[in-house]
Amino acid sequence: MKIKNIKLEHGSGGALSRQLTEEIIYPILKNDSYRELSDATIIDYFVKSKKQLAFTTDTYTVDPPAFPGGDIGKLAIYGTCNDLAVSGAKPLFLSMGMVLEEGLSIEKLQSILLSIQEASTHAGIRIITGDTKVVPKGKGGEIYINTSGIGEVVFSHGISPSRIKPGDYIIISNSIGSHGIAVLSARESLSISSKIQSDVAFLYPLCEKLFTLQENLKFLRDATRGGISAVLNEIVSGNNFSIEIDEEEIPISDDILSISNILGLNPLEIANEGVFVAVVSKENKAKEAVNLLKDHPLGKNAAIVGRVTENYPGKVILNTNSGGKRILDFPRGLLLPRIC
Amino acid sequence: MKIKNIKLEHGSGGALSRQLTEEIIYPILKNDSYRELSDATIIDYFVKSKKQLAFTTDTYTVDPPAFPGGDIGKLAIYGTCNDLAVSGAKPLFLSMGMVLEEGLSIEKLQSILLSIQEASTHAGIRIITGDTKVVPKGKGGEIYINTSGIGEVVFSHGISPSRIKPGDYIIISNSIGSHGIAVLSARESLSISSKIQSDVAFLYPLCEKLFTLQENLKFLRDATRGGISAVLNEIVSGNNFSIEIDEEEIPISDDILSISNILGLNPLEIANEGVFVAVVSKENKAKEAVNLLKDHPLGKNAAIVGRVTENYPGKVILNTNSGGKRILDFPRGLLLPRIC
Repeated sequence: MKIKNIKLEHGSGGALSRQLTEEIIYPILKNDSYRELSDATIIDYFVKSKKQLAFTTDTYTVDPPAFPGGDIGKLAIYGTCNDLAVSGAKPLFLSMGMVLEEGLSIEKLQSILLSIQEASTHAGIRIITGDTKVVPKGKGGEIYINTSGIGEVVFSHGISPSRIKPGDYIIISNSIGSHGIAVLSARESLSISSKIQSDVAFLYPLCEKLFTLQENLKFLRDATRGGISAVLNEIVSGNNFSIEIDEEEIPISDDILSISNILGLNPLEIANEGVFVAVVSKENKAKEAVNLLKDHPLGKNAAIVGRVTENYPGKVILNTNSGGKRILDFPRGLLLPRIC
Repeated sequence: MKIKNIKLEHGSGGALSRQLTEEIIYPILKNDSYRELSDATIIDYFVKSKKQLAFTTDTYTVDPPAFPGGDIGKLAIYGTCNDLAVSGAKPLFLSMGMVLEEGLSIEKLQSILLSIQEASTHAGIRIITGDTKVVPKGKGGEIYINTSGIGEVVFSHGISPSRIKPGDYIIISNSIGSHGIAVLSARESLSISSKIQSDVAFLYPLCEKLFTLQENLKFLRDATRGGISAVLNEIVSGNNFSIEIDEEEIPISDDILSISNILGLNPLEIANEGVFVAVVSKENKAKEAVNLLKDHPLGKNAAIVGRVTENYPGKVILNTNSGGKRILDFPRGLLLPRIC
């Protein structure tokens, strides 16, 4: 019998669990390693490569699961790949743990699985181990996905705030704010922002370009939850340097700017899924970085937005368009829950 | 201000997210790698070891999060370690992704974190990367935890159903059924089963003993969701051999047997978290395996329960106590949802 909706029995470990994986999940993911009857999958890649590996995890709970420009599947693949990429590693293998809510339509699940398959292929990674749980209606959010990722470290100079020094340059890789606005518009059915697409994207090719800067590349971090503001504050937190950025240099579209103004949101706090912050030493290297980024569609609006300074230890300072200065603090309160 | 309950803001990526990790999570997990400001953690272990690695993932959604003998924290650490162990790998590194429901008490979270810390120490593994999301009340189940694990392959003969042949012996490592009954008793407040403790345990030491059997060890699988019945059916499924087991040889306590009878549950379908099925070739090696297991507290009731045969291809046959034969099918329907 063809199944139309997820039932609790699909998580029982018995016949229906098997039916779900055999008839719905495998045919779409078409992945032999995932399919193998084993509790863990063996990787011999690192025996040959002799490279260090990077390991990361992220759970995606975005509401709604589909939004303009993407869905939770694409997000779960690219998001975890990006965490590896900004750590100086090439994404290779992912695990996937799904928590399905009773009643989820199989059609919706299939559409998400297709998106996972497409994103995995694009990113050139393999999902090699998986797990599916079902929770009763009212105990989940349609679908939550955890992806954990293993990558091969290719940037050998280390991506770490401890390498950042006053004088370094702050770069934003592309226009900010579109993921948060796209999800919000889907959630609240805001017609105002219906043309905004999430920027969710696979950032490794862009990071790889910056790896050529060698030791001049100090730090990379994708600006997801909490946006640019959270990343910059994490960098300075507990350190004896400050970051000063110029509002007028921040890449942002007129659409996002006006929607943020209308909704009373600070675009620097809005989540992105295709934008990172880079810290680069030396002016000519920072300019080279921006040129490298601009050479790629995902970095076409890259810009140097500020400097690392000694003036306000532990703080992020925004030089506003109106000529003032204000402290850009860690985002407080609840901007947007379940944005990723 | 001291926080008492999880708020949505704790998942925002801003100041409260930081407070949660800095003040609640880190002090208990005391883990420098987890703490580091990075999206992924670098592992150089495999550069030196030149061993293959094993990778696995599991999401735990057990209801309630605490039960006699354990809680979701212990389960999330041992469960994923066990998946590596039964794959022939020594568990080394875990990631941890938590989905917290708004309103979860900090006290309960701390108790689970303590249990995670204790279990990690006992298992000798390190949680090296983590993520915490918060979902609105009514969109979660207090706490869900995904752990993904990396292990070092130490058993080189391969753990695979493809190595199983007619004539091999089926071993169950210890008495069955206690995890399912313990969780059920906590969920339904059944006084009848209040003295039953979950068997949740770290099984690597027990698996390691069996690795000494070398090529005579064919297959290992922990009997979690769907119990012994699901494991045996997975083994025979699509293969041209059968498994025949003797009901009277199955290790089970009188308590579990009578509670199962009263509740109308088939103990072979009840989830375990400290029991595995092993397939071993040759009678003397199977006996040696049982002796090795009995030598350890977690295997004290180990027993040979049956054989791999050619009589009923693709089927599992139970020789009942009353002298009959019946097909032991994949568990159908919903025995116990959210058991792990």
